[in-house]
Amino acid sequence: MYAAPAIQKLLDELERLPGVGPKSAQRIAYWLLNTDKDIALRLSEAIVEVKESVHFCARCFNYAEDETCEICSSTKRDAHIICVVSEPRDIPPIERTAAFSGVYHVLGGALSPIEGIGPDNLHIAELLQRLASETVTEVLLATNPNVEGETTATYLARLIKPLGITVTRLASGLPVGGDLEFADEVTLGRAIESRRTL
Amino acid sequence: MYAAPAIQKLLDELERLPGVGPKSAQRIAYWLLNTDKDIALRLSEAIVEVKESVHFCARCFNYAEDETCEICSSTKRDAHIICVVSEPRDIPPIERTAAFSGVYHVLGGALSPIEGIGPDNLHIAELLQRLASETVTEVLLATNPNVEGETTATYLARLIKPLGITVTRLASGLPVGGDLEFADEVTLGRAIESRRTL
Repeated sequence: MYAAPAIQKLLDELERLPGVGPKSAQRIAYWLLNTDKDIALRLSEAIVEVKESVHFCARCFNYAEDETCEICSSTKRDAHIICVVSEPRDIPPIERTAAFSGVYHVLGGALSPIEGIGPDNLHIAELLQRLASETVTEVLLATNPNVEGETTATYLARLIKPLGITVTRLASGLPVGGDLEFADEVTLGRAIESRRTL
Repeated sequence: MYAAPAIQKLLDELERLPGVGPKSAQRIAYWLLNTDKDIALRLSEAIVEVKESVHFCARCFNYAEDETCEICSSTKRDAHIICVVSEPRDIPPIERTAAFSGVYHVLGGALSPIEGIGPDNLHIAELLQRLASETVTEVLLATNPNVEGETTATYLARLIKPLGITVTRLASGLPVGGDLEFADEVTLGRAIESRRTL
């Protein structure tokens, strides 16, 4: 036994986190051991709270603490334009650009024949239902600028254009093959402003 | 508001961790959101447990869950030889070498005039008390091979040698200016085997 059992257990749990190897886990564990109890417990509580209180928005599948997310619940958002993203984590970077004031729809992934993800595995039926029941004038496809994201955008454009709704796509400017989640605000803001009609 | 309040709170707490910036915090937070509730809560509980149950060993100031640590409580350890380290985190790498079967004494830091850390800020008085009350034949100084660690070793050697106790120091072989915590096992094992008398 190299460490007290409670410490070893913490190390094991920390090593599961993405990007955290044995040495990072050690640094974090000893930092937690040395830090104020209040600060360490705040992290513990934040994890519990996020697992207890966060679920998916009933309308757009973004993360939400109430039945619908803060964006769907807001009266300040333009519900005529829906921005379609792959994952909830793609929404904060778009919000930070302040270039978009519409609402969202989260697909829960992207089409990927290799990984066996087809249209039925994504919230596409729910999107079409929204387009039928809500008054939507534009759908902005903001899936990632990689193979799966482009495939998904092309697929959705073919479904939605016949409904007489304008379908747009984030402008080029994003590095191809990259992740929307980590794009810088200026690039992503410009991509939203110069979005092109498909 | 770019993220649900519970998510923002988790991000804030994660960003406090050493080596975790905004992007790592995001990756970890979304991983925690997507992972099984059980796994996320195990991490939360491990943090609580470590803060509730871990304190300092009454004898050597290592981390302990009982009054004394597992090493001090063990009947298999040779109590005649005390290995002096700066921090509890320096003990696991020494244990992993299997080259040391004695007991430990944790100073709780190293002498550093610049940071205002003098002998009274370290558990040096407690070490001298142990040397007076226990039967100790050797003290192995395993402070870090950097300026503060060497200063501390030299200071302790001057105090302990007059007591007629053999004082040894980890052999060179460790990269100078480095951190004992991250030394590889072979190098550290060799340094223990070829420790030199001061």
